[in-house]
Amino acid sequence: MTDFSFEIIAQDGRGRAGLFHTPHGILETPLFAPVGTQATVKALTPAQLRELGASLVLANAYHLYLRPGDAQIAQLGGLHKFMDWPGPLLTDSGGFQLFSLATQREVDADGVTFRSHLDGTLHRLTPEKAMGIQENLGADIVMTLDECAEPYNRDYNQRALERTHAWARRCLEAKTRADQALFGIVQGGVFPDLRRESAEFVAALGTSGIAIGGLSVGEAKEETLATLELLDAALPTDRPRYLMGVGAPGDLLEAIARGVDLFDSVLPTRLARNDAALTRRGRMNLRWAALADDSGPLDPDCSCYTCTHFSRAYLRHLIVGREMLSATLLSIHNLRLLIDFTREIRQAILIGQLAGTIERLREGLARGEHPT
Amino acid sequence: MTDFSFEIIAQDGRGRAGLFHTPHGILETPLFAPVGTQATVKALTPAQLRELGASLVLANAYHLYLRPGDAQIAQLGGLHKFMDWPGPLLTDSGGFQLFSLATQREVDADGVTFRSHLDGTLHRLTPEKAMGIQENLGADIVMTLDECAEPYNRDYNQRALERTHAWARRCLEAKTRADQALFGIVQGGVFPDLRRESAEFVAALGTSGIAIGGLSVGEAKEETLATLELLDAALPTDRPRYLMGVGAPGDLLEAIARGVDLFDSVLPTRLARNDAALTRRGRMNLRWAALADDSGPLDPDCSCYTCTHFSRAYLRHLIVGREMLSATLLSIHNLRLLIDFTREIRQAILIGQLAGTIERLREGLARGEHPT
Repeated sequence: MTDFSFEIIAQDGRGRAGLFHTPHGILETPLFAPVGTQATVKALTPAQLRELGASLVLANAYHLYLRPGDAQIAQLGGLHKFMDWPGPLLTDSGGFQLFSLATQREVDADGVTFRSHLDGTLHRLTPEKAMGIQENLGADIVMTLDECAEPYNRDYNQRALERTHAWARRCLEAKTRADQALFGIVQGGVFPDLRRESAEFVAALGTSGIAIGGLSVGEAKEETLATLELLDAALPTDRPRYLMGVGAPGDLLEAIARGVDLFDSVLPTRLARNDAALTRRGRMNLRWAALADDSGPLDPDCSCYTCTHFSRAYLRHLIVGREMLSATLLSIHNLRLLIDFTREIRQAILIGQLAGTIERLREGLARGEHPT
Repeated sequence: MTDFSFEIIAQDGRGRAGLFHTPHGILETPLFAPVGTQATVKALTPAQLRELGASLVLANAYHLYLRPGDAQIAQLGGLHKFMDWPGPLLTDSGGFQLFSLATQREVDADGVTFRSHLDGTLHRLTPEKAMGIQENLGADIVMTLDECAEPYNRDYNQRALERTHAWARRCLEAKTRADQALFGIVQGGVFPDLRRESAEFVAALGTSGIAIGGLSVGEAKEETLATLELLDAALPTDRPRYLMGVGAPGDLLEAIARGVDLFDSVLPTRLARNDAALTRRGRMNLRWAALADDSGPLDPDCSCYTCTHFSRAYLRHLIVGREMLSATLLSIHNLRLLIDFTREIRQAILIGQLAGTIERLREGLARGEHPT
């Protein structure tokens, strides 16, 4: 049996600093994981990803099932080898994409029938199939199949939750690989009773980790925070907690202060491809004309390759000239910023300075110094 | 006075292995130089460029004059700093782009009036202006302003040659920076008497190096080779010879065997963005469906990052998924291939094995093993 133990080495307030063991290395939490949807973190080589400090990397089972096919990847030696990522990998189950990307879908108790967003072909995903795909891919961490409902529709959330729980049980039963950790997913929209019910169900299921789904999907910020506080109290403390799809620095900060350990989001790389940088003092639009003669670094507080080698003027020049290098350099910075930012909060937990650090980081972000 | 000396350390047949001194390092010739048109070799960081073995890098004065402006780059500390290339740089004068890219142009004895391909604004380039732009950029090697005529139009070539020679003289007179080497450019189309006249003129001008322009621009291959042979005999042997815009492996090989030392071309990076790889056994189209389950390296004879870390199946997956990483990985390979290929010929010259090596490389390329 593989070691997927999770040790909390320090706690400060509700924040936790932990070590999560996986077959491809130990993860220091809290951590932010870059997303490599199609088995590539867009515009970056794995060497660049390692250099900027990435540890856990995500890939999407839905995309890889459709193209090039999970069986194909298995035959080529699995996802780690395919995308040349020697560290820990996580695949989601495809649940979120079914409800956000697939062009047509019909949900029944047994699973989901959907049309591919690529070519309209008909496919069927069940809990057993979702596990089969993820076992073919071979990531260290795999997810149960869930149904992501609109946050404010109570009836839909209630029905979806029943299915999500039944599917989670079937995923656990279908799981065969001992070298993969399964994470159950808590759903329930903005409804405290549903969230509590889901937390209890997933906790009892006994998966190696617990994910929080259906947050930061359009609900009011106070409801996000209230839900995180409710879950912090309701969830067992001995397993890593993963808030899916959240990557804005301000959101990371509030969630870590409420007991969350893992994060992923396409935000940093998507912003990079849209000429925007994340900094500790708000976002920055690199197209800004005033930057044309700015010889300073993108972010003077950052030690990434981009910030130590290039000027804002050069980055703007690349953007205006539609050069691909701008996406690469901004992705390097944005990912490093989030990884460093999360690491800074981890350090604060280790030395018992969480509250002051959160306050300082929150104020910095609120300053919004940059042109956006 | 800066040291721009050129030592030929070995000669075999007509092939030369040399050392060309520049303020930013010693260049081992023959060599192939990647092109960074807009102060970036497309899809690559300077760190990746260094790792793949690049020495001399090109940038285009025409593009940088239009955007972001050569004065802007001077103010930001010059081109080396702007694009973070610590090694030798070369800028062309803009001549070639005036005749291939500008949307309108009127040539007179004094210079060229043209419209920008970016926004149609009117500009004027003279020999003095071309030198001013290149001095602002600050590359190690700069070029005289020339006029590139259609290879088979004798009248036009004769008139263009007169202007090219007069402009070369004015460039030399306008030159003020001692830390830049000026290269004169031989023109004359496919006409032996014009080429000989031009070679004699440029040789007598006494520039630090001599470029060959207007070749591989549509003329028959035998005429390219005949012109190179004529120039090899007509040009002084004590200065580096630079064949502009040539980068196909088969063309490099024939030109090195006829006494050429320097090459540049957008071919390797442009092919990379169009899913094609250069190999010693012909070109390869990575979109090919048969590669979908090919676990082998792109090119088993190559030791670049791409060939040592990824399968053909993965590269094809990136291309089919329109992932930017494919352009990066194929650019790394294509540039490394040309740099290694040129270095292999250099080594052959050093050990007196040029003829056999040329024969072997020529045969390999002719095999054309790959699907194109």
